[in-house]
Amino acid sequence: MTELWLIGIGTGNPDHVTLEGRRALRDAALILVPRKGPGKDDLAALRHAILRDAGAKGRIAAFDMPVRDDALPYLDRVRDWHDRIAAIWARVIDAEAPRGPVALLVWGDPGLYDSTLRIAARLRPVPRLRVVPGITALQALTAAHAIPFNTVGGAVTVITGRRLRDHGWPGGAESVAVMLDGECSFTALDPTGVHIWWGAFLGMPEQILYDGPLAEAGPRIARMRDAARARHGWIMDTYLMRRRR
Amino acid sequence: MTELWLIGIGTGNPDHVTLEGRRALRDAALILVPRKGPGKDDLAALRHAILRDAGAKGRIAAFDMPVRDDALPYLDRVRDWHDRIAAIWARVIDAEAPRGPVALLVWGDPGLYDSTLRIAARLRPVPRLRVVPGITALQALTAAHAIPFNTVGGAVTVITGRRLRDHGWPGGAESVAVMLDGECSFTALDPTGVHIWWGAFLGMPEQILYDGPLAEAGPRIARMRDAARARHGWIMDTYLMRRRR
Ligand SMILES: C[S@@+](CC[C@H](N)C(=O)[O-])C[C@H]1O[C@@H](n2cnc3c(N)ncnc32)[C@H](O)[C@@H]1O
Ligand SMILES: C[S@@+](CC[C@H](N)C(=O)[O-])C[C@H]1O[C@@H](n2cnc3c(N)ncnc32)[C@H](O)[C@@H]1O
Repeated sequence: MTELWLIGIGTGNPDHVTLEGRRALRDAALILVPRKGPGKDDLAALRHAILRDAGAKGRIAAFDMPVRDDALPYLDRVRDWHDRIAAIWARVIDAEAPRGPVALLVWGDPGLYDSTLRIAARLRPVPRLRVVPGITALQALTAAHAIPFNTVGGAVTVITGRRLRDHGWPGGAESVAVMLDGECSFTALDPTGVHIWWGAFLGMPEQILYDGPLAEAGPRIARMRDAARARHGWIMDTYLMRRRR
Repeated sequence: MTELWLIGIGTGNPDHVTLEGRRALRDAALILVPRKGPGKDDLAALRHAILRDAGAKGRIAAFDMPVRDDALPYLDRVRDWHDRIAAIWARVIDAEAPRGPVALLVWGDPGLYDSTLRIAARLRPVPRLRVVPGITALQALTAAHAIPFNTVGGAVTVITGRRLRDHGWPGGAESVAVMLDGECSFTALDPTGVHIWWGAFLGMPEQILYDGPLAEAGPRIARMRDAARARHGWIMDTYLMRRRR
């Protein structure tokens, strides 16, 4: 393989694709698409719409994501899973023998809480990588609420829900942006002086937004989240919080 | 005024513009463009190229940025400057009397260390806002280096150079992303176990990248930065650092 392109496609709004992303999708010789992604059929349809709009001319090869081995401890499980995804990519690429760059569509930006770069590093020989940035869920969140990410001159800490749960509000940060939170970890914080801006299905027709002082908005968001998840069968959400100084 | 659109245009590569941004630029009735931005003529040319590519049909109104009043203390100076920019926008919009949305091109993403949202909030009546996310300098940085923004499950703190200088490495963060640093503040840190990925003029033809262990790379980057700044007359740079656990 000569080159592997990791192309950020944004987080649900096909118009979040950049011109660079669109051209890369058009010019790739082979495009690997998972048969079932995390968000199921809705997201598969979105990927195909983006490829169609971009005028992708390359071959589109669907692959099956391996299943995680729940018998393994967490870190081993992730490592093993990444190994197996890399092996599947290698097999598909070998079989297709593309004469040009191979592309993968990456949700949001390839750099933000995404394992594609780590999986790509497992391929042998290590391919030449090109990363095409994409709009992240955090940008979709702040844009939808029309709010700044940071206070003037202030720090923002970006963390996972697990981390917030285990370690609490990160020291020194006025603003905290949380991703990958399946458990409304904001409910465990002292809400005094904290405002939360929450968004689910950002950039999609189902988009839901809510913001308010954490004390009142927190329980409300937890309920909205449960209801939306029950309705759709899945959910993706993220939030930004700020503490009054 | 009915609506004000703040459109993120990325940080130097015209192909970082999203399809949403392109359409918004095309559909705006009036587009306000500063006569002299922070990066001088290069950046003005980029803005006009983006508008041309997008097929902007609206009127393009150039305005002069006010000068900051250095006699005032820092926060007052910024506040006064924002007031005066808002007054200029109001005057131009009044004079042009657009029959449709007014657009502003915002460097990178409108949410990240940018004052456009704060200036817009000063307009009376407060306009309806639409924010179009754009690729940030941090995304251009991690994409160019083909590195992830975060470690697996790890926190990233985004801060200004001043903050890093005044408070040191933020507690609890494995990764620190620094913007608005005119003074190579990384040179003041204990470099033990720290790796730095640096980028200047990201997305532009002049792009410079460098990475390495901070102990060696730090002084080297400081020299490269000085030389590049002398050559171009200005510089924009940003960096990500990670501490080995
Ligand atoms: C594995 S991470 C991938 C992030 C992605 N690379 C990005 O740049 O946004 C998935 C997390 O991103 C957030 N997320 C992704 N898409 C989202 C959306 N459309 N609406 C709300 N949150 C979203 C959620 O917090 C979710 O748990
Ligand atoms: C006022 S902030 C604006 C940031 C912008 N809104 C964004 O989303 O990237 C300006 C800072 O962004 C960074 N920056 C912007 N453009 C850059 C570029 N092309 N290359 C390197 N750094 C850049 C620098 O740290 C600079 O001091």
